[in-house]
Amino acid sequence: QLSLMARLSTLKDLPCETREGYRISLLGNIEFPSEAALCLDRGLEGVGLYRTEFLYLTRTDIPTEEEHYEAYREVTIAMGGRPVVMRTLDLGADKLSMIPQPEDENNPFLGLRSIRLALKHVDLFRTQLRAILRASVHGDVRIMFPLISNVLELRRARMVLADAMEDLEERGIAFDREIKVGMMVEVPSAVVMMDRFVEEVDFFSIGTNDLVQYALAVDRSNKDVAALYTSADPSVLRLVKMAIDAADAADKPISMCGQMSGAPLYTMLLIGLGLRTLSVTPAAALEVKRVCRSTTFEHCQSVAQRALELESARDVKTYLREELQRLLPDQPI
Amino acid sequence: QLSLMARLSTLKDLPCETREGYRISLLGNIEFPSEAALCLDRGLEGVGLYRTEFLYLTRTDIPTEEEHYEAYREVTIAMGGRPVVMRTLDLGADKLSMIPQPEDENNPFLGLRSIRLALKHVDLFRTQLRAILRASVHGDVRIMFPLISNVLELRRARMVLADAMEDLEERGIAFDREIKVGMMVEVPSAVVMMDRFVEEVDFFSIGTNDLVQYALAVDRSNKDVAALYTSADPSVLRLVKMAIDAADAADKPISMCGQMSGAPLYTMLLIGLGLRTLSVTPAAALEVKRVCRSTTFEHCQSVAQRALELESARDVKTYLREELQRLLPDQPI
Ligand SMILES: [Mg+2]
Ligand SMILES: [Mg+2]
Repeated sequence: QLSLMARLSTLKDLPCETREGYRISLLGNIEFPSEAALCLDRGLEGVGLYRTEFLYLTRTDIPTEEEHYEAYREVTIAMGGRPVVMRTLDLGADKLSMIPQPEDENNPFLGLRSIRLALKHVDLFRTQLRAILRASVHGDVRIMFPLISNVLELRRARMVLADAMEDLEERGIAFDREIKVGMMVEVPSAVVMMDRFVEEVDFFSIGTNDLVQYALAVDRSNKDVAALYTSADPSVLRLVKMAIDAADAADKPISMCGQMSGAPLYTMLLIGLGLRTLSVTPAAALEVKRVCRSTTFEHCQSVAQRALELESARDVKTYLREELQRLLPDQPI
Repeated sequence: QLSLMARLSTLKDLPCETREGYRISLLGNIEFPSEAALCLDRGLEGVGLYRTEFLYLTRTDIPTEEEHYEAYREVTIAMGGRPVVMRTLDLGADKLSMIPQPEDENNPFLGLRSIRLALKHVDLFRTQLRAILRASVHGDVRIMFPLISNVLELRRARMVLADAMEDLEERGIAFDREIKVGMMVEVPSAVVMMDRFVEEVDFFSIGTNDLVQYALAVDRSNKDVAALYTSADPSVLRLVKMAIDAADAADKPISMCGQMSGAPLYTMLLIGLGLRTLSVTPAAALEVKRVCRSTTFEHCQSVAQRALELESARDVKTYLREELQRLLPDQPI
């Protein structure tokens, strides 16, 4: 009898689809350029979330446009025409020693981080955007802004992008003028305002790690309240559904890239809620694909419907565990 | 010509109603027992939010049941049968030197505070609840739990309340067995799950200060992101409307007690969204009442409808300012 690992590896080149042939796009979350190879090795169809932070960490000076560009080009070329979604700077100020530090930030998760920090340090942001644009000639590059909480903030980010395009034009450097621009849905206000945001971007990715934190008002790294932090909370299921339904209504692609999307426990639920693209850590790719290939879309829908009726995260988890165990008794949860 | 203050004071004993006679209940937010008199002086119909934290502050030992009781009795008797909504402990651990401090709480607003802290220190919580129950024989006392984020948490709080009732029964002490129990709606998950919570409590109060913080992922005390913090954000308007609509659908009373409810700028909007009870700082009572008495419910509905169509907090504020200035040109905003 083959080990689970060996059996999973046979799935690598098979399509990610349910038993009746309903296709799911599986993309990878990566942090370092070298991980692009890992995505291909696991049969992933692209990079759904390229976290570009490593360029800023482990150093005290500002990364140059060339350094950004080299990293982005490497990933883009490695992915050979497959989509690569590059998320712009998503750090707290405390991680960037090259900029002035905010004093007394008591709640950094509710503070100057991510897109807010980028919009405060526009030069740094524009440098990154120029590099992403330059890499766009090498493949299917897309730009994604994190932590957007209102429409004006998104437009400000798009204006900095327009400035970066202008810079390149002046320098006579080629880039994809039709580059797709998306945003993360990870602040509750963004979910609530999806019908507005669909007019402003080309695609969405639900970031459950932060969304869960804000929706439940829980810092997931705080052990005193860790029990409250869970993607299985009924409110999270509803917020995810609200985001998907709003994107669907406007025919805008939406995916998910938090930890929830890479956990086989949630795969049937997420497909049933309507997600057709999941971005997962490459290590989880084959397990998620196996769930997809073992189930039907119809069953996923009934799982989602039932899960939405449950009143607590505990009940949701118990139910999803039972369903997964029934489907794949050997799947570790 | 009378000063604005003098004219406002003439409103004190007039009912809070719109021009066509649509009644709004105006209640007061207080912190100290002595402020009950202020509520009566401003013609308020009760206490919509009694913040009981002062008993825990400025001391290092645990307040006794008698100390709690004395404070609660004083307010209850002063209010002479009018409703008094007592909110249970709503502090962060950092404010309570009598309990062990959590180590390394990096994001205290997303941490061990409020009902979470109370449920971790059940003895302290139960002492407070016994005192509130004892005060209930002196008037119309109601209990309100803050920062509820899921249904099980609410049920745990109610279980501690049931224990406190049992304590009193064993001691043969009288209390209102039918005491009304409510919760604050201030975590996004609570808004999203309102249709569940309506089955679990007698009333709701929307706490906009925290709701805005979590919905927008902004610490309002952080000046670097203060510009993002505003009750006028379109997502906040929608969340408030969602909460009101869900409470209305279940015929459960809902009020609001954050800063938004005491700002005349928002009065027409909030009435138009369907709120019939506002709990305000006593200092704002007459200004809010004047808005109510100057407008019509129909106009408030059109203001709310228009505000909900706007795309940014800036537009909402501009619009509400224009409306208020048109209604009351001498009202400072
Ligand atoms: Mg995030
Ligand atoms: Mg609060």
